[in-house]
Amino acid sequence: MTVRVGIIGASGFTGAELLRLLAGHPDLELVVATGDSQAGNRVADLYPSLAVAYPDLVFAENRAGLADDHELDLVFCGLPHGTSQAIVPGLLDGRRTVVDLAADFRLKDASLYPQWYGEEHTVPELLADSVYGLPELFREELVGAKLIATPGCYVTTATLALAPLLAAGLVEPTGIIVDAASGVSGAGRAPKATTTFNAVDEDFTAYGVLDHRHTPEIEQNLTHAAGEPAQVLFTPHLAPMNRGILATCYARPTRAVTTESLRVTLHDAYDPEPFVVVRESSPSTKATLGSQQVHVTAFADERTGWVVAIAALDNLTKGASGGAIQAANVALGLDETAGLPLVGLYP
Amino acid sequence: MTVRVGIIGASGFTGAELLRLLAGHPDLELVVATGDSQAGNRVADLYPSLAVAYPDLVFAENRAGLADDHELDLVFCGLPHGTSQAIVPGLLDGRRTVVDLAADFRLKDASLYPQWYGEEHTVPELLADSVYGLPELFREELVGAKLIATPGCYVTTATLALAPLLAAGLVEPTGIIVDAASGVSGAGRAPKATTTFNAVDEDFTAYGVLDHRHTPEIEQNLTHAAGEPAQVLFTPHLAPMNRGILATCYARPTRAVTTESLRVTLHDAYDPEPFVVVRESSPSTKATLGSQQVHVTAFADERTGWVVAIAALDNLTKGASGGAIQAANVALGLDETAGLPLVGLYP
Amino acid sequence: MTVRVGIIGASGFTGAELLRLLAGHPDLELVVATGDSQAGNRVADLYPSLAVAYPDLVFAENRAGLADDHELDLVFCGLPHGTSQAIVPGLLDGRRTVVDLAADFRLKDASLYPQWYGEEHTVPELLADSVYGLPELFREELVGAKLIATPGCYVTTATLALAPLLAAGLVEPTGIIVDAASGVSGAGRAPKATTTFNAVDEDFTAYGVLDHRHTPEIEQNLTHAAGEPAQVLFTPHLAPMNRGILATCYARPTRAVTTESLRVTLHDAYDPEPFVVVRESSPSTKATLGSQQVHVTAFADERTGWVVAIAALDNLTKGASGGAIQAANVALGLDETAGLPLVGLYP
Amino acid sequence: MTVRVGIIGASGFTGAELLRLLAGHPDLELVVATGDSQAGNRVADLYPSLAVAYPDLVFAENRAGLADDHELDLVFCGLPHGTSQAIVPGLLDGRRTVVDLAADFRLKDASLYPQWYGEEHTVPELLADSVYGLPELFREELVGAKLIATPGCYVTTATLALAPLLAAGLVEPTGIIVDAASGVSGAGRAPKATTTFNAVDEDFTAYGVLDHRHTPEIEQNLTHAAGEPAQVLFTPHLAPMNRGILATCYARPTRAVTTESLRVTLHDAYDPEPFVVVRESSPSTKATLGSQQVHVTAFADERTGWVVAIAALDNLTKGASGGAIQAANVALGLDETAGLPLVGLYP
Repeated sequence: MTVRVGIIGASGFTGAELLRLLAGHPDLELVVATGDSQAGNRVADLYPSLAVAYPDLVFAENRAGLADDHELDLVFCGLPHGTSQAIVPGLLDGRRTVVDLAADFRLKDASLYPQWYGEEHTVPELLADSVYGLPELFREELVGAKLIATPGCYVTTATLALAPLLAAGLVEPTGIIVDAASGVSGAGRAPKATTTFNAVDEDFTAYGVLDHRHTPEIEQNLTHAAGEPAQVLFTPHLAPMNRGILATCYARPTRAVTTESLRVTLHDAYDPEPFVVVRESSPSTKATLGSQQVHVTAFADERTGWVVAIAALDNLTKGASGGAIQAANVALGLDETAGLPLVGLYP
Repeated sequence: MTVRVGIIGASGFTGAELLRLLAGHPDLELVVATGDSQAGNRVADLYPSLAVAYPDLVFAENRAGLADDHELDLVFCGLPHGTSQAIVPGLLDGRRTVVDLAADFRLKDASLYPQWYGEEHTVPELLADSVYGLPELFREELVGAKLIATPGCYVTTATLALAPLLAAGLVEPTGIIVDAASGVSGAGRAPKATTTFNAVDEDFTAYGVLDHRHTPEIEQNLTHAAGEPAQVLFTPHLAPMNRGILATCYARPTRAVTTESLRVTLHDAYDPEPFVVVRESSPSTKATLGSQQVHVTAFADERTGWVVAIAALDNLTKGASGGAIQAANVALGLDETAGLPLVGLYP
Repeated sequence: MTVRVGIIGASGFTGAELLRLLAGHPDLELVVATGDSQAGNRVADLYPSLAVAYPDLVFAENRAGLADDHELDLVFCGLPHGTSQAIVPGLLDGRRTVVDLAADFRLKDASLYPQWYGEEHTVPELLADSVYGLPELFREELVGAKLIATPGCYVTTATLALAPLLAAGLVEPTGIIVDAASGVSGAGRAPKATTTFNAVDEDFTAYGVLDHRHTPEIEQNLTHAAGEPAQVLFTPHLAPMNRGILATCYARPTRAVTTESLRVTLHDAYDPEPFVVVRESSPSTKATLGSQQVHVTAFADERTGWVVAIAALDNLTKGASGGAIQAANVALGLDETAGLPLVGLYP
Repeated sequence: MTVRVGIIGASGFTGAELLRLLAGHPDLELVVATGDSQAGNRVADLYPSLAVAYPDLVFAENRAGLADDHELDLVFCGLPHGTSQAIVPGLLDGRRTVVDLAADFRLKDASLYPQWYGEEHTVPELLADSVYGLPELFREELVGAKLIATPGCYVTTATLALAPLLAAGLVEPTGIIVDAASGVSGAGRAPKATTTFNAVDEDFTAYGVLDHRHTPEIEQNLTHAAGEPAQVLFTPHLAPMNRGILATCYARPTRAVTTESLRVTLHDAYDPEPFVVVRESSPSTKATLGSQQVHVTAFADERTGWVVAIAALDNLTKGASGGAIQAANVALGLDETAGLPLVGLYP
């Protein structure tokens, strides 16, 4: 079976990562990639890394009817937050799967959009239809899904660190701290004063303190896992590296736990998973570089009574475009691992 | 007044940083620098960055009587943890000041050494005599001090973030989390599998989870500030950069606080300080690079009820050798800022 | 057809890269990987990046008869220079292919070994039998080859930049300068004073000036391309990055050339090649990261009368392990591109 | 003596570096710093690294009469190339010294501006009056100079590598190749697609091949040193680091030379210089980080008949703002080393 694939908004980093991964996918065939600011330009000129895989591909301009005209079975939407909700409704029809990489269809509670994103959602009725694209939590719901919301990169990391512990009732769902660091690619391709080499290299800083938009999404997932309302303080940091997120999460145990008992719970949850590895020591982002892997671990501190859960992944692969493809694989009934790199690039 | 200075153990990074700073100090004159593994080698061959400042200096071998023979007024001890306590007693006499950069004289409670450092202290009777070399907390005690223990790099960072808030009774002294990231120079000059460029570059990872040795030292300082026992869970991370520590600290408020009220407290504490700057947004390590500056801020999160305090500094300057010189300046009655860079290297 | 593969000396970076690539190779099946210093350890503990692909693989100890006992069809030898020549003769038999990644079988003139490597070759009679593993120059010779010498990483870069220009008689084979920069992984996994993060990060330096061992190998290739003796001055530099080599090569034209005419020659040579891309501007190493791609270009400077040819590649992929697999693919009659990543990891 | 100093165009990296160095200069007192795009903003908000040294300084707007109104004795002009020539004539009067950091007054031959900078010079009559601000070559001319042109960063590097060899007649002035790599700060503060962290980190690439604007300036200096027309092919590269330039230069000897004889010539030229160090092995940029140091060496290759001369420096310190201050010190009769860091920041 060959699935005809289009990418709307392919000129950003998640678009480039989709193109990288699709080049090695046995079932998904890229038909068209749009990028309005780059329309007419060769993909290989913007991303020479794609020169061998896509020597002739040219960015198209997005337009109404594009998906129909190209008979697309699967559309990835790599547009900025807030613009997907204007485009996606027009893409949905009975036979086509739409995977959105923005935040527009992630939150189930429409009232969270004005609170955290500063704007009312324009098609709140679609929020109930979208399936959250994290197979480790929603694999069954994803089968046959027509609208998939790809999780935020920090969100996938924090969720996979904490969800099994919450689901097992081992830690309290409130008072949680997620302290995370990300590589710079999470900020996107557009040059900004805060993302120049000279600003970032040899620097480590926090940003979005108290109000980062991934907060309600982490809470939504942890609430789902815990079965009761979760509350999280999330502090992201910018680390001088291209890719990678490490989330160090702190929660209070509900009862006596040990490092060993926490890891047994992680193994129970993740040993069946194709991409999640339970580590005996802290994960490192670099072990996941360019791959779909997620590395997790947990510690119980008897002295202070805290549980520490740590996860690492590549924010562009499992944390974005790889996550989108994994969800699409599940939705379309393909091998869940198809086209997804199992091995990190090291060193 | 010219103070005759020696460095025992000058071949490591804190030694090289002492040499860098002493080259610009108006009152301290370097007389001898030992480095047993490098004895006989030119300093400028090991550290070409010092070639103009010390064209002829050769590492000496340490030996009994060296401080007397060179008529040293001031000795910096840059030896590894555990070895200082064997050397320092022989250096102490009535007229000489000894500044130790290891952990050997930092903890007042001798029983903490076997617990956190794995060995009994050999001269516990000296612990009461040593003064903790953090002028922001112990300026008066440092005047005339003969034995000074330079704080750990993470410790200075976390302490300066939290101490004023604890001293003002604004946050609880227990349940505190210190989540910090450091550049690689904190691990020292010796090549290790974990500190090669290929291991570190493009990586972010936690280490020393639950049991890092700076934990009891942070607790000692915060207990001092709070006036009651403090307890801290400390998680260090390794960031792909040469220098810099950022500590993001989480504590529970004791009463209603706002971001503004927290910063008023920080300003009250730090506006008189020559090196500490209260920032309106997250500090970044790079703003302090190569300088004695400490940048701090704090936030109150009404939603989750957490206080977040953040501090940044250069681990080798204010966090080690610059801190040692600042304490020595105070001890000797010199201008506290003498020889200490006020400006960070940017970019 | 499934080819049974062993790696002797798999614990270094070229070994890890072979494991990464073999995990995605459709025809090559890894059977055994030795690593004497790591014997008995899990591969995934040394290289967590391989945790999903090789969850249970353990480094074996090398021993006589290992290749026979495992019925290996193909052996990659990732041992240090000078040690391969002791092992390889024992691995050769009529049906098995041996691909050496060291320098031991690269130079055809045995007298070059004492001159550049400081030791006589112990099995010089094998030098004539080995085929130089650069398909772009020796594709026909590689078909059915039983002993393949994988080129040096700098050598592949410089050769691919210059060979077509020399073969076309456009530039002089003598007076050539190859000025190149490499990421740190070329120096191998073992920690050294010169490869710590603190030594390398924010540094750029030359090394091996005048006497780098890749010099005679570059000359051997360029002599082959030119059909007359080539002479090269090669200056390598260390750049603060993990992977990647860029070679900027300077040669004198033999007759009037233009930038356009040089590029026509490059296109003629490389458009049929699966991995080589001719660029209109300077290649960048990052566009090739983790892939088998080689990017090349050339310029003619009318003003000074120099030709500048530039090439970039990933030193561990095309420059080492990927090059070894490409050569093995050709030798064994497989699809030449099998298992080799076409897309660079960006960013 | 206190010299009243203004900086026109202080918001860029060379401006920030001037501010860093002036903070430690005993004789130069900063009175005003303009930055049109930042006018009214605190310097410490744009550059938190300057927060302690300049807590209250605000960027002023440039305007006619500013230098008179502030009674400036010394003006540093940190404006972009091409804009200095519009401003500088209005700043010149009999008693004031103007140090331009742009290219506008560097080239003596006005016809080179349209050729290399694309525009006619608007005040070519001033070119003869300006003194080239490289004390190592023009110390005597700088004494009392009223208009000083600070050399380009690559130019200082290449000139100091080669000038003594040319002055001694040891190498030919034509056929020279300068192959250099620079950190990213040379590209300035403004965000560009080519200077984002994600574009630069883990990348090495050439740029400005054949036509970089520093070429005629290098040739002007080498012509001066040689006493006959010099010709140079200059290839710059971008290295993933903040600061630092290494220039590897290739020239043909005029007669039999050895590595030793080349170094004797370098020592003769540089041992009296306060900032230039002759090394026995390749310089590294990091040894000069943040300091005024220049490290140089040279090699003679008997095999190929090339001379290799290598120099390293910090492009923002000795290569720009430190160079400007050094020249101003000479012009004003101050201690030439005043305010200039002798020690590099390591690691």
